[in-house]
Amino acid sequence: MHELLDPVGSSLAGRTLVNLTTAGSTQARETAGWAAKIGTVYLDGVILALPEAIGTADAMLLYSGPKPAFDEHQATLRALGEAGTVYLDEDHGLSALYDMSVLSIMWGVLNGFLQGAALLGTANVKATTFAPLASTAINVAAGYVSTYARQIDEGRYPAADATVATHLGGMEHLLQESQALGVNTELPNVFLELARRTAADGHADNSYAAMIGQFRKPSA
Amino acid sequence: MHELLDPVGSSLAGRTLVNLTTAGSTQARETAGWAAKIGTVYLDGVILALPEAIGTADAMLLYSGPKPAFDEHQATLRALGEAGTVYLDEDHGLSALYDMSVLSIMWGVLNGFLQGAALLGTANVKATTFAPLASTAINVAAGYVSTYARQIDEGRYPAADATVATHLGGMEHLLQESQALGVNTELPNVFLELARRTAADGHADNSYAAMIGQFRKPSA
Repeated sequence: MHELLDPVGSSLAGRTLVNLTTAGSTQARETAGWAAKIGTVYLDGVILALPEAIGTADAMLLYSGPKPAFDEHQATLRALGEAGTVYLDEDHGLSALYDMSVLSIMWGVLNGFLQGAALLGTANVKATTFAPLASTAINVAAGYVSTYARQIDEGRYPAADATVATHLGGMEHLLQESQALGVNTELPNVFLELARRTAADGHADNSYAAMIGQFRKPSA
Repeated sequence: MHELLDPVGSSLAGRTLVNLTTAGSTQARETAGWAAKIGTVYLDGVILALPEAIGTADAMLLYSGPKPAFDEHQATLRALGEAGTVYLDEDHGLSALYDMSVLSIMWGVLNGFLQGAALLGTANVKATTFAPLASTAINVAAGYVSTYARQIDEGRYPAADATVATHLGGMEHLLQESQALGVNTELPNVFLELARRTAADGHADNSYAAMIGQFRKPSA
C-alpha cells in the first residue's frame, strides 16, 4: 500500500483515506501513524463479503478509526453495503482483529461440520442427511456464545451447563471414534488438549468459557 | 453395561432394550449383536441435553436400531423429550456417530469464538461486545453448511464463493495475528495445515467443501 500511496502522499493532506485491503492489526495501526504524519485522517476497513455481494444487503463492512471521519463519509461508505456498514472503534487495528475473529468462527463451524460429515460418512450417511441436525447444533452453540461472553467479561465461569470435565470425556470419545474409524484426528486432538490444560489449571468444574484462559496464552 | 445386564440376560429375551449411556459406534453395534443372541431387540440412543432439560422441549434424543421397535415404544421414549425425539436409522452405531458429530460442531463453534474473543481481548474489546457479530458469523457459516453438504454428496466442489486459495491466505493471516498478539495458535495451525494439504491435492480453486478430503483420511 505504501508503494501506491507514498508518491501521492502530499496530495492526501487534509483528506480522509479509507483502506479496505486486508492487513494485520499492527499494520493498520502503523498506517494510521504514517497518515497522521502527512496530515491525513485514516479509516481502516475490512470487507466481509464476496465480491458480488458488494453493494447488496449481504455485504458486511467494518470500519475503525476516528468516529468523526466515519460519520462524515458514512453515506459514501454505505454505497458498498447499506445494511452491513458497521463502525467499530477509534483503534485502527480493530477492523483487522474483527475480520480474523469472524473468520476464525466460520472456519470453526465449517471444520466441525466436516469432521462430523467424515465420521458419519464412514456409516454411509450423506452430508445432506446430516446438514439439518448440524444446523440445529450450530444454533444451539450460537446460543451459548452470549452466555459465555458474559462469563468471560466477568472472569467467572459457573457451570450452569456441562462442566469442562464433562466436555473432556466427550472429547476423548470423539478422538477415539475418529481414530477407530480412520478419519482425521487433528481437530479432536486440539479440542482435547485445550480442555485438558483448562482442567489442569483448576477449571474442571467450570463452564466451557473457562477455556478462554488457554486461548489467551501463546502456544508452547 | 455388560456387568449390569449379563446377570439378567435371560429375562430380557423377547423385550426391547434401550440404552442411553454414552459409548462409541463400534460398542453400540457390538451390544446389538449381544442382544440379538439372547433374543432381545436393541435400540441405541444418545441424549443431547443437560440433565435438567430431560422431559422438556429443549431435550434432543437420537435413536438408532430397528424401526419397528422405535415405533412401538415411541410414546414412552417421547416422555424424555416430546419435540426432540429423533429416529435415525437401523444401523445401531449411528446415534453414537451423530452424537460425536454434533458435539464436534459445537466445539468448533465455541473454540472459534474463544479464539476471536482472545484476539479482540488484546485490544480490550469485551467478549460481550464481540458476541452479536459472532452470532451473525455463526449464522452465515450455518448457511454455507447446506450448500457444502450438497457438494460433498456430489463429490464436486465448484467455488461459487471463496476458493480454498483465498481461505488459505486468510488462515495465514489469522496465524500471524495470533502469533504477533501472543494468543494460542493451535487452532489456526490446524485450519492452515488442512487447507494447505487441500490446495496441494489440487483443490486450490475449489470451494471450502473440498476440505472434506482431508477429514476423511487418518492423520499422519
